[in-house]
Amino acid sequence: MSPDEIGAFVPGPRARVEGRAGGPLAGLTFAAKDLFDVAGVPTGGGNHDWPTGRPVPTRHAWAVQTLLDGGATLIGKTITDEVSLGILGENAFDGTPVNVRAPGRVPGGSSSGSAAAVAAGLCDTALGTDTGGSVRVPASFSGLYGIRPTHGRIDVSGMMPQAPTSDTTGWFARDAATFARVSSVLLGEEIPAALPDRLVIAVDAFGFADAAVAAALQPMVARLADLVGSAREEIMAPPGLSVWARAQRTLQPVEAYNTFREWLDERNPRFAFSVARGLVMASLTPEGDRVWANLMRQEARGRMAWLLPAGTILCLPTTPFPAPLRGQPLSVLDPLRDRITCLCAQGGLAGHPQVNLPGATVDGLPVGLSIIGPRGSDATLVAVARALEAKGG
Amino acid sequence: MSPDEIGAFVPGPRARVEGRAGGPLAGLTFAAKDLFDVAGVPTGGGNHDWPTGRPVPTRHAWAVQTLLDGGATLIGKTITDEVSLGILGENAFDGTPVNVRAPGRVPGGSSSGSAAAVAAGLCDTALGTDTGGSVRVPASFSGLYGIRPTHGRIDVSGMMPQAPTSDTTGWFARDAATFARVSSVLLGEEIPAALPDRLVIAVDAFGFADAAVAAALQPMVARLADLVGSAREEIMAPPGLSVWARAQRTLQPVEAYNTFREWLDERNPRFAFSVARGLVMASLTPEGDRVWANLMRQEARGRMAWLLPAGTILCLPTTPFPAPLRGQPLSVLDPLRDRITCLCAQGGLAGHPQVNLPGATVDGLPVGLSIIGPRGSDATLVAVARALEAKGG
Repeated sequence: MSPDEIGAFVPGPRARVEGRAGGPLAGLTFAAKDLFDVAGVPTGGGNHDWPTGRPVPTRHAWAVQTLLDGGATLIGKTITDEVSLGILGENAFDGTPVNVRAPGRVPGGSSSGSAAAVAAGLCDTALGTDTGGSVRVPASFSGLYGIRPTHGRIDVSGMMPQAPTSDTTGWFARDAATFARVSSVLLGEEIPAALPDRLVIAVDAFGFADAAVAAALQPMVARLADLVGSAREEIMAPPGLSVWARAQRTLQPVEAYNTFREWLDERNPRFAFSVARGLVMASLTPEGDRVWANLMRQEARGRMAWLLPAGTILCLPTTPFPAPLRGQPLSVLDPLRDRITCLCAQGGLAGHPQVNLPGATVDGLPVGLSIIGPRGSDATLVAVARALEAKGG
Repeated sequence: MSPDEIGAFVPGPRARVEGRAGGPLAGLTFAAKDLFDVAGVPTGGGNHDWPTGRPVPTRHAWAVQTLLDGGATLIGKTITDEVSLGILGENAFDGTPVNVRAPGRVPGGSSSGSAAAVAAGLCDTALGTDTGGSVRVPASFSGLYGIRPTHGRIDVSGMMPQAPTSDTTGWFARDAATFARVSSVLLGEEIPAALPDRLVIAVDAFGFADAAVAAALQPMVARLADLVGSAREEIMAPPGLSVWARAQRTLQPVEAYNTFREWLDERNPRFAFSVARGLVMASLTPEGDRVWANLMRQEARGRMAWLLPAGTILCLPTTPFPAPLRGQPLSVLDPLRDRITCLCAQGGLAGHPQVNLPGATVDGLPVGLSIIGPRGSDATLVAVARALEAKGG
């Protein structure tokens, strides 16, 4: 399919910036979600009223500049869910990028265009953002490597904020070798040879996923256990995945509402109904709910730190199901979104790094296995991805 | 200003249908708010996702057909607030029609384009709808005659519904003679020569309006009292105008949400934030609030019937202030909208006919005086408008 048929890039002329000659990423191309500043190009944010009245960026976002300095060439900016509020990748204004790995299905969001562009081979890697799952979910739905780094690890200068205590910069690749090259540059460290030696299998998360997804991921889990050397089963979220999700779905929207409230008041921007609905509901959140959610966040951080001492990784299904069909009613999509959050909530709550490993399918549709490590172990997770691919997925 | 500069008509080719030769409205031109069906033209409803998946109308709406049969020629469909939810006339998708009588100010809504087109002289009359003030408010802001007929009086076939127990079809004109000609055809009766003989002045409504508005309307009130022969002051809404407004702002949005909820679910349509916000808030209305509002509606009906026996009319300021500036933040506009509702609530609650009389200004900006009569006295109100203009406004 042609780039136009994929519909991954924002409408209009494509931004292009050549990478520095001779860098470690020389020869690679990349795209940037339209939440990242590219000098001279308005940052669209997936919303036609976002750029109005804002100055055109004069500097590249840190992640864009770092990839350019590494030698990769920017070939375009990609469609995102409106102001990154969405997990499925359907943008009513700019369109829904095609998921070449799951035709007729959503690409996942909010980094929809970045995932679609990489999956379709339009570029080698692409920058996304992940606040509540916006890299992990499209990586799972599109059969890609994708990372949500440790929160705070990557400089977010020039990246449009949503919920800053959860926002991260992530990226996608089709193969582990490219994923490792790009990760090394963005993480600013070598991908190590040493691997973790303990695997925790999150039994609550596998139990929560569709049975077909859990079954499809079992061979990958077995290879991962073999690679690491030891495995044990644990409940990831003793109060319940849905309780963690509830905390995340309280904190993140409230923070997003605070990010956008002045703009909402001044510009009365246009949104799909569902996006506006999320902001309105956030504005009505009782303070007591927010206080509770913050306490649960502290508990989740304690739990994740206890589960993941140095040398340990945890695995779980990235999403409970493969990509849903495009164009379904909200009454179908809302419960799906809520189920997704049950598996993704740790990222926003606890901020541990997470990598989606592609390879499994259900009825031909990709579903990913996630590995999570201690805070700061980002490069080790990439190393595991590389080693597992070398072992044959 | 040219029609394009006024921006009253919906973008795209203009709908035009010639009127029947020799009718009582021969020689007149009219426009129809884009909530009325015109055969062969999609009904836009002020929302770009409304026409999707709906059949193109094959018949004209009753009001359109009646004007055509009367001999008037349709020259276009006009911009409306999104799905008629809005009182100021700012549509983020189609633009804000120019109020030629109050430059730099909103035209009033939701029948914004109809009012703007008539005020600018682009046509002689125009159809609007009035659920919560959508004819009365733009008539006041634009210096026009405008009528909200008795609820249920005019056949609403082919008119897009919003809140059916409050929805009405109304119309605008610049002069009382044209207003009377058009009204006679749409009401299906002669405009009588006999006038009412008692005037009630709604002191709570005059007290609620800006002092400058109340003062500007006093000469018209005096001429009206002189015309009718007797006047007395009464409180219109003993529980409080704001209490009536609260009932109306409970019932109307809940009913509108029920009108649109399936569409919201299936299409996830695009809206300005404020419009989506209203629908979301409506969806959260406690049933007890709705039950109370219905009781207050019954009380309001009783009060209006007591105030308005046969031969009596009541007058009040149509709006508490002239047209606000365009493009203001929601935090400025929301309280203005709420104040407008305090003066308009009787229409939706009690369904009495109401006519806006132009003529007064504050700092050069139009403000209207409203007259309200018993249910079914629509033609008499038009007769008062004609007689008052003959007396010199």
